[in-house]
Amino acid sequence: MTNLRGGDLSRLRQLNSLSALRELRGAGPLTLSALAERTGLSRPSTKDVVDELIELGWVVEVAPTAGSMGRPARRYRFRADSGYLVGIDIGAHNVRAALADLDGEVLAETRQPVLPEAPLADRLAAIERAVDGCLALSGKRMTDLWTVAVGTNGVVTREGHVVFSAAIPAWRGLDLAAELRRMFPCEVLIENDSRLAVLAESKRGAARGAGDVVFLHIGRRMGSALIIDGKLHRGYGAAAGEIAMLPEARWFDAPEHLHACPAVPADVPPEDAAGHTLAAARDGDPVALTCVERFVDDLAVGTAAMVLLLDPEVVVLGGGFSRSADVLLPPLRERLERVCMRMPEVRASTLGEECVVFGAIEYAVAHHDRHLFADDGDPGAQRSPGSSGHGSPTWTRGTG
Amino acid sequence: MTNLRGGDLSRLRQLNSLSALRELRGAGPLTLSALAERTGLSRPSTKDVVDELIELGWVVEVAPTAGSMGRPARRYRFRADSGYLVGIDIGAHNVRAALADLDGEVLAETRQPVLPEAPLADRLAAIERAVDGCLALSGKRMTDLWTVAVGTNGVVTREGHVVFSAAIPAWRGLDLAAELRRMFPCEVLIENDSRLAVLAESKRGAARGAGDVVFLHIGRRMGSALIIDGKLHRGYGAAAGEIAMLPEARWFDAPEHLHACPAVPADVPPEDAAGHTLAAARDGDPVALTCVERFVDDLAVGTAAMVLLLDPEVVVLGGGFSRSADVLLPPLRERLERVCMRMPEVRASTLGEECVVFGAIEYAVAHHDRHLFADDGDPGAQRSPGSSGHGSPTWTRGTG
Repeated sequence: MTNLRGGDLSRLRQLNSLSALRELRGAGPLTLSALAERTGLSRPSTKDVVDELIELGWVVEVAPTAGSMGRPARRYRFRADSGYLVGIDIGAHNVRAALADLDGEVLAETRQPVLPEAPLADRLAAIERAVDGCLALSGKRMTDLWTVAVGTNGVVTREGHVVFSAAIPAWRGLDLAAELRRMFPCEVLIENDSRLAVLAESKRGAARGAGDVVFLHIGRRMGSALIIDGKLHRGYGAAAGEIAMLPEARWFDAPEHLHACPAVPADVPPEDAAGHTLAAARDGDPVALTCVERFVDDLAVGTAAMVLLLDPEVVVLGGGFSRSADVLLPPLRERLERVCMRMPEVRASTLGEECVVFGAIEYAVAHHDRHLFADDGDPGAQRSPGSSGHGSPTWTRGTG
Repeated sequence: MTNLRGGDLSRLRQLNSLSALRELRGAGPLTLSALAERTGLSRPSTKDVVDELIELGWVVEVAPTAGSMGRPARRYRFRADSGYLVGIDIGAHNVRAALADLDGEVLAETRQPVLPEAPLADRLAAIERAVDGCLALSGKRMTDLWTVAVGTNGVVTREGHVVFSAAIPAWRGLDLAAELRRMFPCEVLIENDSRLAVLAESKRGAARGAGDVVFLHIGRRMGSALIIDGKLHRGYGAAAGEIAMLPEARWFDAPEHLHACPAVPADVPPEDAAGHTLAAARDGDPVALTCVERFVDDLAVGTAAMVLLLDPEVVVLGGGFSRSADVLLPPLRERLERVCMRMPEVRASTLGEECVVFGAIEYAVAHHDRHLFADDGDPGAQRSPGSSGHGSPTWTRGTG
């Protein structure tokens, strides 16, 4: 029999709590026996863990089902409604937001158009309205929010500074995290939008379950993001995914083939030109088809560089042009097959325009899981949201 | 007080044993108190764990130091000599091997030249001689070997099939693992040589401690390998790192600038031409300098693609040409600075020719650590080398 002392026990208890919570979140309400079976813990240990999670406010007992014979076994569920998360996609042309519970279940969504050249104050005001709209739609209050997770264009540091943004001039050099913390009395997380998109595709979209994923953000601007070994890859300075910056990768100017295609009539506004070219190619217009071929020629160079370097399981075609995946995927696959050692699955995004918002919510959910119980054996990092009033967590990075 | 049952305990015990073993391997001999402090375990738990490790043959008590006052505290050390590993680098022109203990400490090394066009049987015979040589030099027997880890040129599957090799024609399509298992009565591991090189650089070379590393294998042939988030990146089909296959990355033909430089006199044999060009450039020969500039122009394109995509902490220049890193690094850095979002550290390999052999040994050491105690809670995967005679482990993949 192993001798056990306090330090060993608190370590074991953390691991057990985390494992129980993961099972409860993934499944519906569970009895103690069912939870014990799923976690591999003994029944008495499971009971201890569940009692602790109830005390912390993360788990609640479910009312017994009516009509069952005899005394029904008690069942427990994850309290997804003990706090709420908002995911925001701050694009050049739109601000989208969604409010979700701690399971990532979306309760409300908003969208507002903005202009790429809009001054900073206007874009920040649109963000505030987006969150207010989600709260009003879902009947929640600002104090119910635990986290606002934001995806935005450009290179964003771990601290939430925008180092560079090609698409939103007013964003360059901005301490976006500080601006948003002045606005929202909860935790604020900021990440590059393509990275949130690949996270969403790997959690609930076209790349579900894949360990190594390359995401192609193709549209008015070109970008990429990576999941490696099941994790979002940021790079040492959070600047990963910027292959479009390399002229030889031929991504940066690739959309010009679609924007400036002679098949587009003069009266089509510039922002609709690429869509027109893709639609005309689908209808068999030979001039449009040539422009699409040229676009795919260029797209395939940067994509092949990523595939040859990383050998991913899945490549996901996302971004605005991915609505025309039926036109783009066959020629893209054909070019990749010519040069790649091993062909990955190449699939269209299944989340479309909502990709970044969903990714922001997944990012916030994962952040909570990571911080809930410390995996590293430091009991000081354990968090108890139930003990800090109004559901606002105690590990808020900054509340302005 | 948490209730504990058998399943929970065996899980805890595995984690504790692994953590104790890591501390004992990293440090010199330790007392129980010192080990308890490093692992965070209680002293009685530490005692139980050490007793178990002694029984399994992994740990041994050290003889007390003479001359100390009173009864000295018992000290324990990792038994690095309970088994031996051989690392082999099968190159186009050389077969290198080294024999090491379970700590990765090298006891013997051998090298033999081979011809790239040598028939299969000749190269396999050279491998056998390389291992026999290491055994003779170190006074060990074949039965002392736990693992032979091999690095070779080309794309190698997880099962040890060589899918493709540009440098060794006889290797293509070979089930190398099966050939070597017929030869060695122990576990055989096979991996791409550039990957083993980056592993060595990240464990004991130029990229020590870095989480994200890009390794440039530059020489008669060009290759690359990646460490991402502290782990070797293989890719879904073990085909990662093949960026040289992309014409636009300009790597494949880049060495021609050095091989075919007009600064090389006609009497220099072809295999020495590149070295001659690099040496002449170091001496200021303007023609050689132009050839080096052209080589670096091409090298920088593929390198920038990797840096922009991954944002690594360190780029390591390895392979045969890295002996001339003093000539190559300044112009490479200058070109990367022009195009990269964030400049990584760019360093020359510090392990040189022995990179792959050291990497093979690190690979075997890591393999043993991974398999010693299962992290995944499956007690069936726990291994006890001491219980299987002659130090040959029970988890040998194939013994022919």
